[in-house]
Amino acid sequence: MTFFALTHQDKNSRARVGVIHTDHGDIHTPMFMPVGTQATVKTLDSLDLKTLGAEIILGNTYHLHLRPGEDLIDSVGGLHKFMNWNRPILTDSGGFQVFSLGEQKTDKGQGGLTRIDEGGVTFQSHIDGSKHRFTPESAIQTQHKIGADIIMAFDECTPDAIEKKYAAEAMERTHRWAKRCLVEHQKETGRHGYKQFIFGIIQGSNYEDLRQQSARFICDLNFDGIAIGGESIGYNMEATAQILNWTHPILPSEKPRYAMGVGLDPADLLIAIEGGVDMFDCVAPTRLARHGMVFTFEKHKGKHRINIRNKEFAIDQKPLEKGCGCYTCQNYTRSYLHHLFAAEEITGMRLASIHNLYFLINLVKEAQRAILEDRFREFKASF
Amino acid sequence: MTFFALTHQDKNSRARVGVIHTDHGDIHTPMFMPVGTQATVKTLDSLDLKTLGAEIILGNTYHLHLRPGEDLIDSVGGLHKFMNWNRPILTDSGGFQVFSLGEQKTDKGQGGLTRIDEGGVTFQSHIDGSKHRFTPESAIQTQHKIGADIIMAFDECTPDAIEKKYAAEAMERTHRWAKRCLVEHQKETGRHGYKQFIFGIIQGSNYEDLRQQSARFICDLNFDGIAIGGESIGYNMEATAQILNWTHPILPSEKPRYAMGVGLDPADLLIAIEGGVDMFDCVAPTRLARHGMVFTFEKHKGKHRINIRNKEFAIDQKPLEKGCGCYTCQNYTRSYLHHLFAAEEITGMRLASIHNLYFLINLVKEAQRAILEDRFREFKASF
Repeated sequence: MTFFALTHQDKNSRARVGVIHTDHGDIHTPMFMPVGTQATVKTLDSLDLKTLGAEIILGNTYHLHLRPGEDLIDSVGGLHKFMNWNRPILTDSGGFQVFSLGEQKTDKGQGGLTRIDEGGVTFQSHIDGSKHRFTPESAIQTQHKIGADIIMAFDECTPDAIEKKYAAEAMERTHRWAKRCLVEHQKETGRHGYKQFIFGIIQGSNYEDLRQQSARFICDLNFDGIAIGGESIGYNMEATAQILNWTHPILPSEKPRYAMGVGLDPADLLIAIEGGVDMFDCVAPTRLARHGMVFTFEKHKGKHRINIRNKEFAIDQKPLEKGCGCYTCQNYTRSYLHHLFAAEEITGMRLASIHNLYFLINLVKEAQRAILEDRFREFKASF
Repeated sequence: MTFFALTHQDKNSRARVGVIHTDHGDIHTPMFMPVGTQATVKTLDSLDLKTLGAEIILGNTYHLHLRPGEDLIDSVGGLHKFMNWNRPILTDSGGFQVFSLGEQKTDKGQGGLTRIDEGGVTFQSHIDGSKHRFTPESAIQTQHKIGADIIMAFDECTPDAIEKKYAAEAMERTHRWAKRCLVEHQKETGRHGYKQFIFGIIQGSNYEDLRQQSARFICDLNFDGIAIGGESIGYNMEATAQILNWTHPILPSEKPRYAMGVGLDPADLLIAIEGGVDMFDCVAPTRLARHGMVFTFEKHKGKHRINIRNKEFAIDQKPLEKGCGCYTCQNYTRSYLHHLFAAEEITGMRLASIHNLYFLINLVKEAQRAILEDRFREFKASF
């Protein structure tokens, strides 16, 4: 059985349906992956995630390294056992957090708390300021200990507004690190009793030639899947679509593709799917939920969401979304959710999180059906 | 069918088993009632409460009056519909919060924000400082609108350390208010389509003669059940047991008895049951849970609980309580809970709340069995 099997290629777009096989079960793509930063998707537990239909969740290596630490997770048999989640897990490499949670510091010592050199990255914990260092090798070792089914190469995630010279330097460093990650990954011999796959990450900021150069480099290596990273991805969907356009011709159809950080608005998932992407993750759906922003099929002021804290919902007896099959919509009204947020009750955050994740997972399931019937473009246009 | 039916009186103690019949179902006593202050038990939703076995929950009239307001709840058909809870609900009258959340102010204007007169109590909202007034009549009207199956008379809840003169004055005011509450209650003609029952409250602080006088007065009125109130109840279990001793001979066996605020420690429930009490409530089990304090059958440093945040639990692969049937213990380890609390994840608060409530509800179910077999004293001693 191959790792990834393409089930169907939409006849009128780059959208596609496939299956990723792991020892913890199959992932039907396109798939939205909820983010369980610290071994939990905020406000939810592992069985909630099963109930709402998540086939895979994400863990953040940076956060898990700091708390509870990869050695503890390793000692209890890996992250699946630790958090009682027996479906697939993907861990990022920590690259994004190292750069987003600390200021970058150059070799000359200017800047903030994070210092990059050829060997790796030295950074300070956002929790207690303690000093840590990730190298390509240690990031892979840490991910081996955590034990996700899919792990990521350690990359240098570069910001949007960056000079080409630095973008190229960072990209080339990411390429050298990618090779080191692969070498380190080959040393793992199945400590947890199941296979771990590894994805490489394309960088190159918002430069067409760099993105294509990076895509060629990463796709030529022996990675199991290809990720597209960088600050723009998911955060700026116009740039994301453009980067997907630039790189798509280079990406091999037989490897799964992962756009890192897409999912701020439900429509963004459809843009990524249209760009030929199979997997995406984003913390926004649960973060928005904790602030009372819940997803809707209809647009309100240009976005697929309402703010349940608005007064208009105080006596609204409808569910968050009419016809939605999620636990929240099946059981509670907008009026009740409005009250829970007004009264600052945690239960409101939880019920909204359940809705937002179910909404996205259900949306990509509908996208899967549309692709199988070669009507993805119409489906996207109707949303 | 009578409101309350005594099933069995333990042969060797005052402990007893009974059933309260309401239009939203039966309550098997003794029963611990989780407190859903603001139309939710903190961190949980209504279906969680069913899953963990709650037969009745509490709502707080003071909090519901401030948010979302009784008129809104009334307009959607009552609290059951508002929060999607179709089992019985009890609301307190607001008396306790009016006195505990604001400083008492005498007629002469000294003191804090709460002002008592013969007509009722004027107080300021703890949320925004807005002025509100509860009278015995308005407290009953508010509870009619909220629509609990069991509502409480409006009382003056007096502190522990209080002079006898004031304790007597407050008690007599509570008695006059009790009669006014009953008059007001008789005006309700079933707005929500089901019957609402009303309990009177015995006060009298820690004075034997006052407590007995109050018990005689309240028991002589036409209440459906008898509550024992005051700051000491639940907060000081020695005083609680003494007050139960003083009043027990006066309480009619055919009415249910409710000790308001008992449940800080699991053992406290057994003390109240031994005192002949049928119902209790307390916010402590969920408040403690949110701080990582989880109940255990074994005592640790004199109390039936552990602090899951302690380092010793970081790698502990056991459930919170061995053999516990709760959702948390069936699915997650102490190690995982320890991590969730260390990482300040809301999920930890929720899982600990589920455990603590299940623990108490399961404990009183075991107490019920022990009473039915006339071995309550042994059961209590073994705990």
